[in-house]
Amino acid sequence: MAKPKLFSPGPIDVAPETYAAMCGPTIGHRGADFEELYASVQPGLQEIAATERPVFLNTSSAWGIMEGALRNLTHKKVLNLCGGAFSDKWFGVAKSCGKEAEAIQVEWGQPIDPEAVRAKLSEGGFDTVTLVHNETSTGCLNPLAEIAAVVREFEDVLLVTDTVSSFSAVPTPFDELGLDVLLCGVQKALALPPGLSLFVTSERAQARAATMPDRGYYFDFAEFQKNHEKNNTPSTPAIPHIYGLRERVEHMLAEGLPNRYRRHEETNALLLEWAAGHGFENLAPEGFRSKSLGCFKTPDNLDQSGWIKAVRENHGFLINGGYGKIKGKTFRISNMGNETVETMQELFGALDKELPKFRK
Amino acid sequence: MAKPKLFSPGPIDVAPETYAAMCGPTIGHRGADFEELYASVQPGLQEIAATERPVFLNTSSAWGIMEGALRNLTHKKVLNLCGGAFSDKWFGVAKSCGKEAEAIQVEWGQPIDPEAVRAKLSEGGFDTVTLVHNETSTGCLNPLAEIAAVVREFEDVLLVTDTVSSFSAVPTPFDELGLDVLLCGVQKALALPPGLSLFVTSERAQARAATMPDRGYYFDFAEFQKNHEKNNTPSTPAIPHIYGLRERVEHMLAEGLPNRYRRHEETNALLLEWAAGHGFENLAPEGFRSKSLGCFKTPDNLDQSGWIKAVRENHGFLINGGYGKIKGKTFRISNMGNETVETMQELFGALDKELPKFRK
Repeated sequence: MAKPKLFSPGPIDVAPETYAAMCGPTIGHRGADFEELYASVQPGLQEIAATERPVFLNTSSAWGIMEGALRNLTHKKVLNLCGGAFSDKWFGVAKSCGKEAEAIQVEWGQPIDPEAVRAKLSEGGFDTVTLVHNETSTGCLNPLAEIAAVVREFEDVLLVTDTVSSFSAVPTPFDELGLDVLLCGVQKALALPPGLSLFVTSERAQARAATMPDRGYYFDFAEFQKNHEKNNTPSTPAIPHIYGLRERVEHMLAEGLPNRYRRHEETNALLLEWAAGHGFENLAPEGFRSKSLGCFKTPDNLDQSGWIKAVRENHGFLINGGYGKIKGKTFRISNMGNETVETMQELFGALDKELPKFRK
Repeated sequence: MAKPKLFSPGPIDVAPETYAAMCGPTIGHRGADFEELYASVQPGLQEIAATERPVFLNTSSAWGIMEGALRNLTHKKVLNLCGGAFSDKWFGVAKSCGKEAEAIQVEWGQPIDPEAVRAKLSEGGFDTVTLVHNETSTGCLNPLAEIAAVVREFEDVLLVTDTVSSFSAVPTPFDELGLDVLLCGVQKALALPPGLSLFVTSERAQARAATMPDRGYYFDFAEFQKNHEKNNTPSTPAIPHIYGLRERVEHMLAEGLPNRYRRHEETNALLLEWAAGHGFENLAPEGFRSKSLGCFKTPDNLDQSGWIKAVRENHGFLINGGYGKIKGKTFRISNMGNETVETMQELFGALDKELPKFRK
């Protein structure tokens, strides 16, 4: 059976031209061919991250960098800002690295309150904060600029921001906001298959990392900087993904970033309008809703899994039936990557056609 | 300009059918489609590793597992067996993780002496040993069975073995030898592009890992086991590479492992014979020579870089001019992966044609 087109919030649908690019020739990664490839993606990635800092590439999922950032940066204590499956898990990962950690926990779907961050940091003892910008599990878009401004009030505290499902869908201006680490995987808004992560570090973060005696090698920020200066990566890179990334970055720049952000706004507005039209309630409150996906509460009178299955089987589209502790109680639809008003309308047509059969 | 065919010892030449397989449909990794894919590669990989233990898949290069193994296993002190670029570096990586470490250092190209391992372990204080089975930088094949037998004499010492450039080229029977961790990347003898690593752990290694409080998440052996039981991986997997791996594993089983090992022996014997015929001296001593590559000393009267460049430009084949501190003083040729007597003969024809021009 043909696999459905993915409208789940990552991995998402990958364009045939991206796959074609990934089949570029295998090249040695310690020579000029790879250096050219590495250098070719830098300007575009820096434009998307709105930074003059390098954008490092690593063969790992985003979790590798989420863990690695703490191994590079946390001498004292991490403050984990938690409000969904991924941000909550980060708190556990911090402790699994032997780091002292404390959490601000909000209800899933609710945003982090910058005032609460200020109050907690004012207690002292923290040197690192983790934030998931766009909680993929809940569709909540946290107030990044406001939280970053609060963290910047505390001289020795560094902010690690997961932009896994927001990078390239909404602006995440690294330099302007004074972030310390920005990280993402490539299988969300960048529309590549999974297998590569990207990250940016501030000079402050690099200076801190240099003082960490047990930061290891695989995620060592200093090694990434040193190798970047030779247009290379510390460890063997996932070359097919970097070919694919080059193709996607060229595509994004050809579209133009303002147009790309506008397209995500439009397709997301359409998604929210479609949901509202059916009385599906957004899990995230107004003003804090993701622009790259929607997460909606499952109505009591809906046979959700039957509906999702019918849309998959009869129309070849896959939406997601919730993640973590809200699995089955929510459903999620992605408008990330290459989707347009037309392709979203196609999906809504299929969802609408099947919906009446599964209203109890 | 078209890229040359790689006869360098990894990454190596990738078959068109492997690339085609990698373009399989993007699927969600938390569902039945991925679970089927994951399960489909297990029996073949277990056959290659000659083990009944699971073969874990991770989105990282082999270095990730090389570091992760120490974070999972080393409470007391690591003994790093060093005799080339990769084994030497592992000693540094152990220390970068904050682990106590000591090295047995042999000259590059020389094998590790099992007696020296016994003597050092007898001093006490060690709980982990690292061994690079086939040193890709020197072409030395270490006596794995003998070293494993020595390590097994010491009840609390676990053996971590890098089989990066030997896995599937020569037998590395995990269960029979009583190894504790066997790890490799996919861009060497498995003939995939880089971007995925594989590893096997013993029950002893799993039990030890469970006692490590700061082992982290990304390389946590316990997480791999837990997810394996659901045919899954802890973090988002590099799905294209796992499609490619399935294709290669099917190919290997169709060839038959004894035939595959014999093919590597034959092509390697041919390589050594070709080298001997030209008076190129093997860096590794007889009895300890890799079956998947050759590393030869550069004669004083050879303009090595000119020769390699001419072979690349005029024939489209790339061999390697040495690695690490023996770069320029050695050259390396791989017979890993899909090479046959015929394809090796083609390479030798090209090398021979250009050689006289670069003898000084």
